[in-house]
Amino acid sequence: MSKKEQLYEGKAKKVFATEKADEVIVSYKDDATALDGLKKGTINGKGSINNRMTNFFMQMLEKQGVPTHFVEELNDRETVVKKVSIVPLEVIIRNISAGSFAKRYGVEEGIVFNDPTIEFSYKNDDLHDPLINSYHALALGLATKAEIERIKELAFKVNDLLKAYFLKLNVKLVDFKLEFGRLSDGRIVLADEISPDTCRFWDAETNEKLDKDRFRRDMGGVEDAYNEMMRRVFGD
Amino acid sequence: MSKKEQLYEGKAKKVFATEKADEVIVSYKDDATALDGLKKGTINGKGSINNRMTNFFMQMLEKQGVPTHFVEELNDRETVVKKVSIVPLEVIIRNISAGSFAKRYGVEEGIVFNDPTIEFSYKNDDLHDPLINSYHALALGLATKAEIERIKELAFKVNDLLKAYFLKLNVKLVDFKLEFGRLSDGRIVLADEISPDTCRFWDAETNEKLDKDRFRRDMGGVEDAYNEMMRRVFGD
Repeated sequence: MSKKEQLYEGKAKKVFATEKADEVIVSYKDDATALDGLKKGTINGKGSINNRMTNFFMQMLEKQGVPTHFVEELNDRETVVKKVSIVPLEVIIRNISAGSFAKRYGVEEGIVFNDPTIEFSYKNDDLHDPLINSYHALALGLATKAEIERIKELAFKVNDLLKAYFLKLNVKLVDFKLEFGRLSDGRIVLADEISPDTCRFWDAETNEKLDKDRFRRDMGGVEDAYNEMMRRVFGD
Repeated sequence: MSKKEQLYEGKAKKVFATEKADEVIVSYKDDATALDGLKKGTINGKGSINNRMTNFFMQMLEKQGVPTHFVEELNDRETVVKKVSIVPLEVIIRNISAGSFAKRYGVEEGIVFNDPTIEFSYKNDDLHDPLINSYHALALGLATKAEIERIKELAFKVNDLLKAYFLKLNVKLVDFKLEFGRLSDGRIVLADEISPDTCRFWDAETNEKLDKDRFRRDMGGVEDAYNEMMRRVFGD
């Protein structure tokens, strides 16, 4: 599998064509952005950590019945994935109040919900990824009703599996963002990443933040947090 | 039925106690606010128009199986309604793109949706009534699952009935806001008002705005628009 022309460069990843029409190579960067792009920086080693962690979870989820875009890890930073057309909805699952939820609804962080919540953001940088619901997404033609139902079902399943997994690592899965894509035959698969960039992880005993909030909030210890999550997942 | 102490003063209405513990008197004002309270003004005759129009529609809906808070119109501006505890969710139904929807999602006004959309705003002035979905509302304990389902069911029914009714008046029902309340026995009833303050009305042929957008957008002809809607509904 060899890297051909670059197809896309995002905030944290580049995507390259391959010799296969239906597969691409994702290359993870150390670049970090936050606060709707206003804050920019570098988290040393992040690209490698996010690549390896994402691939670990994609394979775990695939084995448990969640279809994903994962094909093959090439090296520390690069992975072959199935080419998808991304559904322009960021899918956010929350188990505990934090971040934009706490701010938007005027509640403290750390409220444990009886049931997880799901929400969608319309992936659109110009509009600053506004909150959107499934009726709006349908009205705007962003996804079909069947796709939205499938995405909800898969997202809650991912939450059940990951929440249980992280608890064994002494980590609370507070909330996380998923993205889904359509394969050429229309099937929905989990895409993007699962990492401290896209999940809020709190130590189960101390509630210490082990995720990108340390970068967003200038808390220091950013690399340490990413490395600590890596150590808990891989034991290395 | 006599007016006792004032219980509450909102932006467009006052509420008074009565000699009955389970009934209150609503008194409609000519005061108008918009743009999250930044814009203030007066629309002459609005209180009377909104009172009479709301009562007309509450009675029409009640006859067609939608339980409402309406009891009895006392005079041009005052109406007896059942005392309710308001569910802190503004319920917005949209048939055509306009207003905050068009702005938030970067689309033009006037797109006719295949199916109506529903959305909730968390009624909270300090937080500027943020968009909220049913999972969040449940997590925050704003309503029960059964209440949310009932509210959705009633809101779509109200839309079907009103949309058909207004079309006969040569008016497009673009979108509207409803509020629901809980009676002392827990039953959900339609509350608040149905008027040019809470609905977007467009003339079916010219798309001329016949609602509060004329005030919000400094378009002039505000009173004329309210009077025109009154004329179409009552023929007076």
